[in-house]
Amino acid sequence: MNEISDRYPGLGLTQTQHVRLCPEGMPLDTQVTFGPIDVAYETYGRLNDNKDNAILVCHALSGGAHAAGWMEGASQPGWWDNMIGPGKAFDTDKYFVICANVLGGCYGTTGPASIDPETGKPYGLRFPVVTVSDMVNVQARLLDHLGVEELLTVTGGSMGGMLALQWAVSYPKRVRSVIAIATTYRHSPQQIAFNELTRQSIMADPGWNNGDYYGGEGPRLGLAVARMTGHITYLSDKGMELKFGRRLRAREKYGFDFSKEFEVETYLQHQGKSFVNRFDANSMLYLTKALDYFDLSDNHQDLTEAFKGCQDSLFLLVAFSSDWLYPAQQLKDIARAVRRAGGDATYYEINSDYGHDAFLLDYEKQAPLVQSFLHRVATTEIPRQPG
Amino acid sequence: MNEISDRYPGLGLTQTQHVRLCPEGMPLDTQVTFGPIDVAYETYGRLNDNKDNAILVCHALSGGAHAAGWMEGASQPGWWDNMIGPGKAFDTDKYFVICANVLGGCYGTTGPASIDPETGKPYGLRFPVVTVSDMVNVQARLLDHLGVEELLTVTGGSMGGMLALQWAVSYPKRVRSVIAIATTYRHSPQQIAFNELTRQSIMADPGWNNGDYYGGEGPRLGLAVARMTGHITYLSDKGMELKFGRRLRAREKYGFDFSKEFEVETYLQHQGKSFVNRFDANSMLYLTKALDYFDLSDNHQDLTEAFKGCQDSLFLLVAFSSDWLYPAQQLKDIARAVRRAGGDATYYEINSDYGHDAFLLDYEKQAPLVQSFLHRVATTEIPRQPG
Repeated sequence: MNEISDRYPGLGLTQTQHVRLCPEGMPLDTQVTFGPIDVAYETYGRLNDNKDNAILVCHALSGGAHAAGWMEGASQPGWWDNMIGPGKAFDTDKYFVICANVLGGCYGTTGPASIDPETGKPYGLRFPVVTVSDMVNVQARLLDHLGVEELLTVTGGSMGGMLALQWAVSYPKRVRSVIAIATTYRHSPQQIAFNELTRQSIMADPGWNNGDYYGGEGPRLGLAVARMTGHITYLSDKGMELKFGRRLRAREKYGFDFSKEFEVETYLQHQGKSFVNRFDANSMLYLTKALDYFDLSDNHQDLTEAFKGCQDSLFLLVAFSSDWLYPAQQLKDIARAVRRAGGDATYYEINSDYGHDAFLLDYEKQAPLVQSFLHRVATTEIPRQPG
Repeated sequence: MNEISDRYPGLGLTQTQHVRLCPEGMPLDTQVTFGPIDVAYETYGRLNDNKDNAILVCHALSGGAHAAGWMEGASQPGWWDNMIGPGKAFDTDKYFVICANVLGGCYGTTGPASIDPETGKPYGLRFPVVTVSDMVNVQARLLDHLGVEELLTVTGGSMGGMLALQWAVSYPKRVRSVIAIATTYRHSPQQIAFNELTRQSIMADPGWNNGDYYGGEGPRLGLAVARMTGHITYLSDKGMELKFGRRLRAREKYGFDFSKEFEVETYLQHQGKSFVNRFDANSMLYLTKALDYFDLSDNHQDLTEAFKGCQDSLFLLVAFSSDWLYPAQQLKDIARAVRRAGGDATYYEINSDYGHDAFLLDYEKQAPLVQSFLHRVATTEIPRQPG
């Protein structure tokens, strides 16, 4: 036992679970009814008898259900292990933490690489376009399955933050609080532009073959280029300066050729190539499209009106100073809209050079904010509105 | 005549000229000797008898020698026509303006698409890697050919600004003044990263065929994706918000598919596709690589030392507030280094939402700065150092 806890500190080995939901299908935003839907999820800690200690953690674009703890033999723990575990910000000695792979993903939940029961082959582009709201609806079915009626908090960074905000709007009665980090209430044209670049990189690769590549190589080069785009936007200018500068990799002087030579090139190419082995290109298309459609103010007069039903939820909005992909202003706008709608919002900007990646890396600054906010949530009596 | 001046206002029709230089070859930074080199250039206005009214204009990555005036039948004038012409900032009634396509380009000056006299076929990747310094050396030979010993000013935005700065360092005696706009003294890792993304987009396209695609289709999709990257970096977040917002193109509501639907997607795809018809993919590789190698502080203790020989030149550095590709700080750093080296530098930041593109678009704010600086240059007696 000691040997295992040495090798796998924190939560130790964790296991991804699977459940089949919506056997009769679930209505999507596109008006299509879709199902059944397999959902991959992990849980950490225990649901208490009052069932009021559940926290839903929502992952970002390339994440999955494995948020914390270790897979057997893995060299790295789950993607938010620095935030989730005994004594950590999301303290598994106190809270029951749930993380599920989103609809359209490629880490165990039904997505374009899953087998279409009608054809016996992977969906590919026959998979329906899904929205952030659809993803949240699937998560709500999962909570039903787990016997969790109300969430103490729903949280996430980047795409995960959008899901958290969507939760508050879609299911205000089930959400005590929201911690939305490094995210937005709607994708801006610049954010759409980077996603479109990602999609065009994939679709320009002949290996993509209109999404029908399973069993073959697939769009390996296109997906790698797409991932390079992502990583440029996840780092800050200053962070890159500190991390790479103009240093050369394995060379004393310029090679005057087109092989990788600057460290930053090596980093990006490595990130691109390794991503291809762990992510499905079609999922990247579907998830980026869901983000681009995301606009909480849609079908409302303005964002304030969208939060009108959320007076019973407490909001913590966290931005990072050097995050230019999801700039601080977007989170300030959310805080202001929540307050104007009569709600309770705390906005905090963390000073960091990590850029957008800070929500994954800068846990030393992030964790205390989360802890004190959760303390406040647990000790704040919210007057329930009638009905 | 009147009809022509109505159709082609300003400088009217202009003509690109061609000259073969360096018949015995020119030594490059790579130690390779390369030549002959054909140079395409245009001139506007007249060289005066004192030969002290010459201005060299250096183009950016995708530009060429056609800086001002009109090509027969063209719907648009040259790329800096709003700055160059009778009565404009670079007043062709007063000045003799020269613009030449750079070494490695694809608008008439020898580059990878040119015929290699040794093989009778396009160079492709047999073309030598060139640097900003090499480009400037070719321009110096062109000035020799034109009988221009000293430049009243050398100017340019983006890559053109780098050439202008390199001129001051390489040929301090030939440069009375420098106007460097929206540029840098060395490519930062983020700037290298975007260029590497550009190159990888091209090289991932099987149509690139290791640079040997002339006579065929070439890497059309890859080059289009590369150009989309460029255009994202040329606009600002706020500029995109003003220009596109989340508006849909030719649709009332979301299409829930992967065709272009947001206006920003339509814009980027259009820019990408039309670029393919006017630019050579290999030139894009060579020019971006030259930019990445650019570092004026290379082989010097620091940037200040690089400018030690430039006390006789006046510098104007212009930044744009929303330019995040070449941020204002980089131009401030240049101004400071010039001053520390005992030189004369004026720094100005123009408030603009146009992002990096502002140097091409925001001429109403840019022109008066240039005009008053040129007036100062013309009326300032610079004490010539002995020797």
